[in-house]
Amino acid sequence: MTQVSPPDAVRPIAWRDDALVLLDQRVLPQEEKDVVCRTAGEAAAAIRDMVVRGAPAIGITAAWGVVLAVQEHGNAPDWQAKLAADMARLRESRPTAVNLFWALDRMQLRLNQLVTEGADAAQRCASMLAEAQAIHEDDIAINRRMGVLGADYIGKGESVLTHCNAGALATGGYGTALGVIRSAWAADRLAGVYADETRPWLQGARLTAWELLRDGIPTTLIVEGAAASLMAQGQVQWVIVGADRVAANGDVANKIGTYGLAVLARQHGVRFMVVAPTSTVDLDCPEGAAIPIETRAAEEVTRLGDRPVAAPGAGAWNPVFDVTPAALVDVLVTERGVLERPDRDSLLALMESA
Amino acid sequence: MTQVSPPDAVRPIAWRDDALVLLDQRVLPQEEKDVVCRTAGEAAAAIRDMVVRGAPAIGITAAWGVVLAVQEHGNAPDWQAKLAADMARLRESRPTAVNLFWALDRMQLRLNQLVTEGADAAQRCASMLAEAQAIHEDDIAINRRMGVLGADYIGKGESVLTHCNAGALATGGYGTALGVIRSAWAADRLAGVYADETRPWLQGARLTAWELLRDGIPTTLIVEGAAASLMAQGQVQWVIVGADRVAANGDVANKIGTYGLAVLARQHGVRFMVVAPTSTVDLDCPEGAAIPIETRAAEEVTRLGDRPVAAPGAGAWNPVFDVTPAALVDVLVTERGVLERPDRDSLLALMESA
Repeated sequence: MTQVSPPDAVRPIAWRDDALVLLDQRVLPQEEKDVVCRTAGEAAAAIRDMVVRGAPAIGITAAWGVVLAVQEHGNAPDWQAKLAADMARLRESRPTAVNLFWALDRMQLRLNQLVTEGADAAQRCASMLAEAQAIHEDDIAINRRMGVLGADYIGKGESVLTHCNAGALATGGYGTALGVIRSAWAADRLAGVYADETRPWLQGARLTAWELLRDGIPTTLIVEGAAASLMAQGQVQWVIVGADRVAANGDVANKIGTYGLAVLARQHGVRFMVVAPTSTVDLDCPEGAAIPIETRAAEEVTRLGDRPVAAPGAGAWNPVFDVTPAALVDVLVTERGVLERPDRDSLLALMESA
Repeated sequence: MTQVSPPDAVRPIAWRDDALVLLDQRVLPQEEKDVVCRTAGEAAAAIRDMVVRGAPAIGITAAWGVVLAVQEHGNAPDWQAKLAADMARLRESRPTAVNLFWALDRMQLRLNQLVTEGADAAQRCASMLAEAQAIHEDDIAINRRMGVLGADYIGKGESVLTHCNAGALATGGYGTALGVIRSAWAADRLAGVYADETRPWLQGARLTAWELLRDGIPTTLIVEGAAASLMAQGQVQWVIVGADRVAANGDVANKIGTYGLAVLARQHGVRFMVVAPTSTVDLDCPEGAAIPIETRAAEEVTRLGDRPVAAPGAGAWNPVFDVTPAALVDVLVTERGVLERPDRDSLLALMESA
């Protein structure tokens, strides 16, 4: 064992001087630049424009966005209406990651308590800030717990393929899929990490490689098209990904390309692990087909940043997520425990466990 | 039927004023620029550097490269040694597409005949030029024939996904996979064409979309990661691709990502068609595992053109081709006929038919 404490250097979201400070993930790794949000509207725009992305990170950002709203509207006569409008704006920022709605619901619940208790504006600010802080810190602790649970499944000398970025940058810190990779690396089990570059946003090339290399974990990129060859050649034993929403039956919405990897993994005897906190599980969503899948502009495919690459006039179909059926998930890691081959019954039992 | 003659506007290779003129496929579609080759060495460099790509186009370019060598070395005392050196240079330009070796062998055979016949330098020039011209024109005729044969399989209102560029730009003209698409479009059968953007070189976005749009065939791009969702939603009934080499048992080497598409197609009940002239079939290669697979520089993945995109220090594994087992091929279209579920016996019988 070369290290006892898993490396963990990256924090994408911070609260400083009564403002929300986000590491701008659109310009990484070429630039390390912060975006400062002082209103809930700015936080909602940052989510929509992908300054911050990743289901848990979106939830945490929304929670801090509510704090910004509580601060801003203070004791104004119509503060409750203004806060409700900001909540709605945050709720509409992106459709697929359920952590957004989970975090907003938790903040709303706390606010309702405070109103019932007759808290004044200063008390509301302090208590809502504490609630967002708790959501944020809980997320990191949960990721560390999932890291340990997931790493137990990785055999000595095995290699892993991951997709998109389910790392520190996608969460409060440490990461979900990359948390398992960090923990397995610290335990000296991992022979190698491959990362899909993950078109069109290149989160794998730009973000996953960046944060793993910062933590001293060597990372080899592949284009998505090379994943099947990688598996056929026996170069990886695991595919490990995060999730944007897990339906009640265990179906998993995650970054476009995940479902194809799951099919290929099963075909090649490669195991498929999803790492997601229970805040990503949506028991109100009976199955994957009911998960709303965001489609973004064709230009994200036809252009690369400010540069056109595709032939002028070419259209593009640009769904951001896909759905992997539960039957293709070998291991679902949550902070409450691990489900092998999750299904409706086992997931419900897990969610009802305290 | 809206058209009787399939559209076919693009020609990537031309012989003009005793020189080989190649449309520079590295800068399409933003620029339409020619590269003029006056020596075999320049032709070999154009193949290596991917000014021209696609198995049949590589073969045709090599044939014209031999003409350049015959012209250049004329009646020099050591013309045969110089020609042999140029042949070797062309032979080493790229390793996977067997059409390169097929075309060079055919040119060598013609040269041997001419030497045996005691042809002088002028006769050698004229006859070798005629041979290259025949290879070039045969290829277009073969593609038109395959287009008709393949289009017969496409049902009215079906849609197609293609990968990389197996079009006019990859051949003498008309294309292999895109030849079938052109013919099916002309016969008013196709509801739609989807094209994988095809990282890392983006041949789908840059070349396939460009040449299909020039011919008035609407094209929708997807990132490779979206192919599985496209199939799961029933948006395509066929995957149609070209080939860089077909082994004696029917295994197919083609652009990286093809094998994964074949697995996904089978999983989703989507049919998988390979369109390749018999010059792509290598009976000396017993199976796919024996096909040499080119690996190119990591920078093709970590950079986009001159711009770094990946985190500094990230490695990349960049195989250019993969191998699809014959068992996943539903239809193999050649100019001599079509094989359903090709295998060693049926492919050998086809190759031995005249």
